[in-house]
Parts: sequence; structure tokens; C-alpha cells
Amino acid sequence: MRMYDLIVKKRNGGFLRPEEIRYMVEEYTRGNIPDYQMSAMMMAIYFRGMNEEETLELTLAMEQSGEILDLSGIRGIKVDKHSTGGVGDKTSLALAPMVASCGVPVAKMSGRGLGHTGGTIDKLESFPGFTTELTPDCFMENVNRIGIAIMGQSAKLAPADKKLYALRDVTGTVDNMSLIASSIMSKKLASGADAIVLDVKTGSGAFMKKEEDAYALAREMVRIGKGAGKRMAAVISDMDQPLGYAVGNALEVKEAIATLKGEGPADFMELCLTLGSQMLLAGGKAEDEARAKELLQQVLRDGRALKKLAEFVEAQGGDSAAVYDESLLPKADYEEPCLSVKEGYVSRIDCEEVGICSLLLGGGRETKESVIDLSVGIVLLKKKGDYVKRGEALALLYANDREKLRNALTRLLGAYELSDEKPGPVPLIKGILR
Amino acid sequence: MRMYDLIVKKRNGGFLRPEEIRYMVEEYTRGNIPDYQMSAMMMAIYFRGMNEEETLELTLAMEQSGEILDLSGIRGIKVDKHSTGGVGDKTSLALAPMVASCGVPVAKMSGRGLGHTGGTIDKLESFPGFTTELTPDCFMENVNRIGIAIMGQSAKLAPADKKLYALRDVTGTVDNMSLIASSIMSKKLASGADAIVLDVKTGSGAFMKKEEDAYALAREMVRIGKGAGKRMAAVISDMDQPLGYAVGNALEVKEAIATLKGEGPADFMELCLTLGSQMLLAGGKAEDEARAKELLQQVLRDGRALKKLAEFVEAQGGDSAAVYDESLLPKADYEEPCLSVKEGYVSRIDCEEVGICSLLLGGGRETKESVIDLSVGIVLLKKKGDYVKRGEALALLYANDREKLRNALTRLLGAYELSDEKPGPVPLIKGILR
Repeated sequence: MRMYDLIVKKRNGGFLRPEEIRYMVEEYTRGNIPDYQMSAMMMAIYFRGMNEEETLELTLAMEQSGEILDLSGIRGIKVDKHSTGGVGDKTSLALAPMVASCGVPVAKMSGRGLGHTGGTIDKLESFPGFTTELTPDCFMENVNRIGIAIMGQSAKLAPADKKLYALRDVTGTVDNMSLIASSIMSKKLASGADAIVLDVKTGSGAFMKKEEDAYALAREMVRIGKGAGKRMAAVISDMDQPLGYAVGNALEVKEAIATLKGEGPADFMELCLTLGSQMLLAGGKAEDEARAKELLQQVLRDGRALKKLAEFVEAQGGDSAAVYDESLLPKADYEEPCLSVKEGYVSRIDCEEVGICSLLLGGGRETKESVIDLSVGIVLLKKKGDYVKRGEALALLYANDREKLRNALTRLLGAYELSDEKPGPVPLIKGILR
Repeated sequence: MRMYDLIVKKRNGGFLRPEEIRYMVEEYTRGNIPDYQMSAMMMAIYFRGMNEEETLELTLAMEQSGEILDLSGIRGIKVDKHSTGGVGDKTSLALAPMVASCGVPVAKMSGRGLGHTGGTIDKLESFPGFTTELTPDCFMENVNRIGIAIMGQSAKLAPADKKLYALRDVTGTVDNMSLIASSIMSKKLASGADAIVLDVKTGSGAFMKKEEDAYALAREMVRIGKGAGKRMAAVISDMDQPLGYAVGNALEVKEAIATLKGEGPADFMELCLTLGSQMLLAGGKAEDEARAKELLQQVLRDGRALKKLAEFVEAQGGDSAAVYDESLLPKADYEEPCLSVKEGYVSRIDCEEVGICSLLLGGGRETKESVIDLSVGIVLLKKKGDYVKRGEALALLYANDREKLRNALTRLLGAYELSDEKPGPVPLIKGILR
């Protein structure tokens, strides 16, 4: 088999056979196929696409290119959740304790933030002492004992995807549905869960700006997961404005805690209940969505979910007192309102811009090496449909640097659009695929 | 400027500005743009194409990536000829002495054969002692003194094209008209001629199998040449069967000599007169084609062209006696006819297969490192439209190895197709573009 022939086949619109895809992925991972051939192949795939069979095979070949986590030591059906990423997406912080309280074990690998989107691990590190550097044994034991453990992503999982993504990233070959779906799913499959619930974001703050693209990606990932024998569900949710009000690591932790106390933003609560009920269904803990939501609301009402967060933070070396006392979380020196210069209804918030403001304040990473400031960020006071008077605050900015604060203030102001007419309501949940 | 942005621009169907193409070619040649980005760009160009402006700019940037030959020391209008390559294409061997005898200086860079096509330099080396390793001074002096000199292609000309072609060759990105045209033309432009006459072959033995593709390539190259300020002409000629009868280095030299004596095959003579008259027109040695052909026929009739060949061979260290005495040229040990097993009219000859037979006999190179046997090859006895009886010879094979001879005989037999009906005549010259 020669990589050259495979490139020409795909370039001419042909379909790659399973053994051809295996060969390509395995030999590329071993370094026997050079980057310049693989990037030509990726560009050919960009133009010609891959069919369902090819996409599944590519995913499986990448999954099997490295270690595959063995979660068999954990009792019960393991349900993983994955978000395609967004601004103010603190979902795992509230969702994990909620579903764990209902008896669904959460054994999760999470990532760090990059660019305008944050990462669960950074947010969790707002709890003083918290660590995700767990041994595999400790990870398993924690899940069995308290129902939750979160680890950093191992470099040993799906190395083919890592190598291939790095190449696609610099060769303009990221934007292809099959390649995006197989990249995400290869890591998820290697993480060893029995069921996977996907949160596919769409809108100005999401990777998929257009709703139809989000649906296409969700469909592709559900298909791959089922093809690999997993129980699958995908929720398509709005990311045309930030989720909840808080954007920034410690600020989001506070909002997640408030939500576990039943005092969180309505949109964020709705998302947690929707994703949570899919996880309970997949984990066999409820017969239908109504019953699942009831169970989740119960663990919020009786405080079990909040207590579960504290147990989880404690189990991974964090100061669980911070769950009950906000003042123990990182706090920024300056708090400054972003004042509206116009009057009207908020008709649009450029969500990616809000993420970039948080990044500019020091709360995110421009490159993988950046050091982040957990205390800074933004708390929106106005979201879509809200009425704002001239001089009224649109948001509060938290910063440790006056210069950065000024830049972020200007930029945030530009992210808001006001209009005379009240815009129609934006449904948070666009749809659910199974 | 970032190569990544240029890749995405082209991928999305945009056009690259002149300075972007310059940047890409210059930085790639310097090694500052990695192969994996360039191969992605080449695949994007394969799918999106390049417009006339982009193609011209790419050609000029590649031309200017290295040395440009200065032929100003040669008197008169310098006319170069380039063939896209074929089987039995000994054109330069007869054409160069013909036009030089008419007063058009021939200062030519030629290549060696690879795969199923031969190269002018290999053929010329059939003359014992002949060399193309000339100093630039000697090259110029020879052209001024006798009207012809032929050198090997310098590695210093168009290094960007060399690097890019090697990459395209292994990444499935050769087959794009703009890229093919700019690759050929960058080298031709760097070779310093004032006018260029192209012989674009089409048919089963040519790079361009389809006539429409040959026309498209010819048009593109003429456009580029004119854009670079050169006088241009392109002849589209048939390569659906070998040119003339002889295929193989010394065998082709003999056929060229016969042609200079007025005893050559009709098709080969027609091509030499057609290309030669274009060269005379470009060189200002004739007012119209009729007059140009007359001049060329004159130098054949009075023996000046044959004498010019002898002078040329002598001037480059070869034994010019071989021009008048065939027995001084390399000769194979075995001569064996390929006998027809059927009866009928020759309806098709797979021309590439004939080239491969010569390669198998040892007359061509499988890789750049192969050593070739100048004496072996094939002399066709039957061409398209000829009637063949069962047991009659289709061709004579010349070999120095019985095993290779057997293989080539079987394969050559398979290259012939016979039919009951006489096929229509095949015009050798398909058209001329200027």
C-alpha cells in the first residue's frame, strides 16, 4: 500500500477502504508517512469529504492508536459528557455533582482552556489546592467512593489524533465535519465510557457558528459513537451569547455553586437539567426525561448535589470550605462596570468577543504556555432581550491590571448591540439527537 | 504574511495577489515554509485552480528563484524548442541542425530520459565521445561559431520549481494545468531564449492523453510566455503512436540521420518541418510558413543540415564519422522480430507500452540512477492503418539480454490492436497556437 495512491484516490473522489485508513493512521503515527503527504490528504478530504464508513474507521483507527482507558473497575454504567466549547461554559462544575448524586458515576477527562474558550480544569483549580494529577488507582477509587473524579487528558490517548490535529491546525484543514467529528470522538472513545452525552454549541461564541453545522456535527458524532457500540445523545444548545452570566474561572465557579444552591441563571439551569437527564437516561437511572429531571431537581433541593461538589473538591486535594465561603476563592483587585453609551434592548452579544475580553483580562490562554489569572473575568448584567438605559451597566469586569481593564472595557462595549425593538426570545436548547 | 492565511484563502476559492505568490515561492525555496504547508496549498490549487495572473506570477517567481541564463553573447534571435515528451521523439536531433543551417542559433538545455520517455542527451551520447558538459564560455562560443550547442540542465535554474515538483510528485498534486504549465515555463524562461516553440504531445504515449488537455496546456504556456515578453508558438502533435519508427537511443539517432538525408519517416519529417518553420518565423528568418519550409527543405536537399549535425557532434567531443557510418554507433547483439498472431489492420498502438518495452530492454531509466543501454530498442515495421498478415513482423526488437528480449516481445505484441476495418488516417499535426 502506498500513501501516494491513497491521496490520488481520495483526490479523485474515491472512497478509502477500512484497511487503507488503518494503514494511513498507523503509519502516520509511527512517522513512516511524512507530514507533507498527510496534509495533502487532509486537503483532499476537505474537498471530497468522507462517507460514514470512512469517518467511523478513521475514528476507530485514531482511538486505537494509543492507550484505551479501562474503566471496568468502576461499578455501573459510565456516562461521559463532552462540550464542543463555549464562553461561560461551566456546565461540568454543576452537572457532575448533580448526576453523581443521582447515582451515575462521573469518571471524566477534562482539558484546559485555549483562546476564547475556558477549560474545566482551570476553573476547578480556583479551589485552593485542587489537583487533577491523580494516579489511575486513585481516580478509580474516588469514582467508586464518592461518584466523581476528574483527570487531565492523558497524552497517551489517541496520539494519532494529537499529531493529526496539530498538522490540520497549520494547514487550513480543520474545517471538515468528518475530520472534526472523528477527532473529538476518537478521544472520547479512548476515554472508556459506556455512554456519551454531547453538548454541541452553536452561535457566535461556538466553534460551529451556524445551527445547521452544529446539527451536522452532532449527527456525525452520534453516528460514530453508535457505530462504536456506545449509547449516544447530543444536545444542540445556544452559544450566541455566553452561558449564564459569569465568564472567567473563579467567577464561573461561584455561578456553578449558586446553581447547585438553586440560585443560578435560568439558562444555565435549563442546560444542566437537559444534559443531566440525558445522562441519567443513558446511565439507566430514570425511565424518561420527566422522571430524570425530577431526580435532578430533588438533589438540588435537598443539598446533596452541593455536598457532592464539596466531597469531590476535598477528594482531589482542594479546600472544600470554599464551596460554602466564596471569600476563599481567588478575587480580583479591581471591579469596574461597563457602562452603556446608548439606550435600547440588547439585540446581540458577540459571544466570542466576550471570551476574548476575558482572555485579555488574563483569564485565558493565548498559547498553550500562557499562565492564567483565575480571579479575573466578566459578569454580564444584561443579556439578549434586556432593556438598558444610557449609563446603565452592561457588565462588571474583574481585573488585576488597569491597562488590561481599559482595553477589555472598550472591547466589551463593542460586543453589545442595542436596538429599539425587543428581540424575540432565544431558545437555549435547539434540539436533542439520539 | 502567513502561509496559513494563503492556504485558507486559496482553499476558499480566493485569488492570491502577486506579492503573496512571491512570498510563498521565495520563502518555500529558502526553507522557511515547510513542505506540509506547501503540499496543502498545492492540493487546494488542484481543486480551486489559479487564474491567468496567478499562473504567470507563479511562473515568474519560480523562474527568478535561481540563475537566469544570459545568452546576450550569442548573436541573433535565440529560439528555444521544448517538447512535453513522448516515445520515439528524436526531434531535436534533426531539427537543431536544420534550423541552425538556416541561420537560427540553437542554444539549448536538454534533459535525460525517465520512465517511458527518452531524453535528447542520452540519444546524443550514442555518438562515441559526445559530451554535454560544456563550460558556459565554450557553450556560447560553439553557438556563435557553428550555430548549435546543447548543454545539460543546470541545477541552478529555477530551484523553486525543482523543489516544488519533487513535492507535487509524491503528494498527488501534479495534475493541474496551471502548475504543469508554470513548471515547464519557469525553466524555459530561465534558459534565456528570446522565443520559444513548444511541441505539445497528445495521445496514449504523451503526458496529456486527451487532445483537449494538450490544447489547454498549450494555451496556458503560450499565455505565460507572452506575459513574460517572449515570442511564442505551440504545435499540438500526435503521440498516440510512436513518432517515426525507431524507439531507443542509437536507433533514434540513425533515424534522425536518415531524415537529414531526406530518407526519414513521413510523420517525423512533417513534424520537423512544422516546428522548424515556426522557429524560423520566430527567428525572423522567413516571412511566412511556406517560405520557411522551403528554406528547411533546401538545407536537407543540399546536405547542409547533415553536415551541421557532424560539426555539432564534433564540437562537443563526439565522433562525427558516425554521422556517415552507422556501424560506429552502438549496436545490440540480438535482433528479433515481433510476429503478429492475427491478421488485420493496425487500429491502435499503445504508445506508452512501446516506451515501456524499450525501457524493459534496458534503453530507459526506471529511476534517475539507472544506467541505460544505448544500443537497444525497437524499430516498428507497422504503424496505424498498415495491414498485417498472420506471422508477419510488427516490429524488430534489439537487445543484449535474451530474458529481457522475451519479456519485451510479449509486451509489445500486447500493445498492438488489429481490426478488420482500415482505420481513418491520423493527422500528426493537430493544430498550431500562437
